[in-house]
Amino acid sequence: MDDRDLLQVVSGIIGKERTSDDCCMIKLGDENIILSTDMLHESTDFPKGMTDWQIGWMSAAVTLSDIASCGAVPLAVLLAAGLDEPERISGITLGAKDCCERFGAELAGGDIDFHSELTIVTTGIGRVEDEYYKSRRGAKPGDIICVTGTPGCAGAALEGALRYWKNLVEPLPAVREGRLLAVAGVSSMMDVSDGIALSLYDLSESSGVGFEIFPDKIPLSSGVSAELALHSGGDFGLLFTCGRDILPVLDVDYAEIGVVTDSGEVLCDGVPVEKRGYSHSWIDGS
Amino acid sequence: MDDRDLLQVVSGIIGKERTSDDCCMIKLGDENIILSTDMLHESTDFPKGMTDWQIGWMSAAVTLSDIASCGAVPLAVLLAAGLDEPERISGITLGAKDCCERFGAELAGGDIDFHSELTIVTTGIGRVEDEYYKSRRGAKPGDIICVTGTPGCAGAALEGALRYWKNLVEPLPAVREGRLLAVAGVSSMMDVSDGIALSLYDLSESSGVGFEIFPDKIPLSSGVSAELALHSGGDFGLLFTCGRDILPVLDVDYAEIGVVTDSGEVLCDGVPVEKRGYSHSWIDGS
Repeated sequence: MDDRDLLQVVSGIIGKERTSDDCCMIKLGDENIILSTDMLHESTDFPKGMTDWQIGWMSAAVTLSDIASCGAVPLAVLLAAGLDEPERISGITLGAKDCCERFGAELAGGDIDFHSELTIVTTGIGRVEDEYYKSRRGAKPGDIICVTGTPGCAGAALEGALRYWKNLVEPLPAVREGRLLAVAGVSSMMDVSDGIALSLYDLSESSGVGFEIFPDKIPLSSGVSAELALHSGGDFGLLFTCGRDILPVLDVDYAEIGVVTDSGEVLCDGVPVEKRGYSHSWIDGS
Repeated sequence: MDDRDLLQVVSGIIGKERTSDDCCMIKLGDENIILSTDMLHESTDFPKGMTDWQIGWMSAAVTLSDIASCGAVPLAVLLAAGLDEPERISGITLGAKDCCERFGAELAGGDIDFHSELTIVTTGIGRVEDEYYKSRRGAKPGDIICVTGTPGCAGAALEGALRYWKNLVEPLPAVREGRLLAVAGVSSMMDVSDGIALSLYDLSESSGVGFEIFPDKIPLSSGVSAELALHSGGDFGLLFTCGRDILPVLDVDYAEIGVVTDSGEVLCDGVPVEKRGYSHSWIDGS
């Protein structure tokens, strides 16, 4: 049982439209508010060797990335920290504040608690106009699928490629890119923080489409394999679909990696992609 | 070192105006958005014997109570759960959803993670008009201070008074009361979830005033002492200050328990009130 199975349970209670994206949208007068919340904890989410400042930065970044993937402009982040050692609050708060400020949001408050294991939950809020709001629904057969940045670097760092350590521990949410892509008119968008493969399956399910991916087209940094890009997490690029007519989108570094099909399958060079990536898995009896 | 000490550290980084209330307010066009986040975990926040449904209910209630204390109308709640056993998600989600619906909000999404100890973070969002937004600032010497409901019941349940068990595990946030009091024009407001005494010290610090409390006037349920009302947590009543001219506030069950002074001290029958109540305390070496 992994977190995607659990999501099915929640989805049965609060509705599928509330669980199919990492964000939810709430209408408030003429405004659309985007909300997202993420729980991270030390043993599974923060690689050993991270500083508290980096932990704070990453905690804010994961939520800003979700906000960005909706095409929204981030406004504020709240941070709830369950601390194993009280002294850590200052580094964590500074890191989160610096990340928020870098991407135009405010670290606006939070909660403090004590915990045997460091646990951080960030909640982000953003705003978006009706016409620019993007979700995992909306990919259409005939669209192309693209990714921003060079995925797989964070995964490479986890496997020991130290030159990508900063990609892993000081990730840069694609706030500017998400907004530009939304305004340009992409048909669906999400971040690839669980790896491209799982993200494709999520998009496939939400949009009711399939994908044919050409792995040779995945843009890779030196020493990073397509396998890492597909199946490792921790990168903060965006995956998006669009009609070819809106391209090029200026000032966004993206690459076309495949096409949207009506098959319902996620294929790579004609073979189904393994449904594997970053997922909190539940191990019975542990 | 307790959570109030830690708050000083955070306050030095993100600013005192962002930490002096349980909520923060963000302007968005003509709207004011109220946000609040709360972290709860099993060993310190959920008394033994609670069902998962009650855990979900309480988790939503703590955040709705913070939203209510600002005079805001709640809109939505997000719930991030770190689960020790995956099966618990369904009871917890149902309880949170029922609490949200009871108080006019939507359980709009969340996040799921795994944790050695059950950990839940709820984040609430509400809206409030400029003129009705209430905070801990604004109490003025000459105002009176009042409390809603009958405080101390949750504390009595913790000490074994089983007839108050539901007050403890299925708390009712004062959403309706908070709104009516805000519209009536109270000068400051907060909830008493850490006990009346600590709440008075918080109000005193934020508003720069003192209080003279008449313990005989604290409304008590049968078998509940003024000591419990002052120094135990878990109740969800509201503490508010106001000029006498706005009274009575119709349809709100409140009692006048003292007056606001300019002394800076919190006195009860002329003696300083012990600064003790519900607070997560940090024990060195544990």
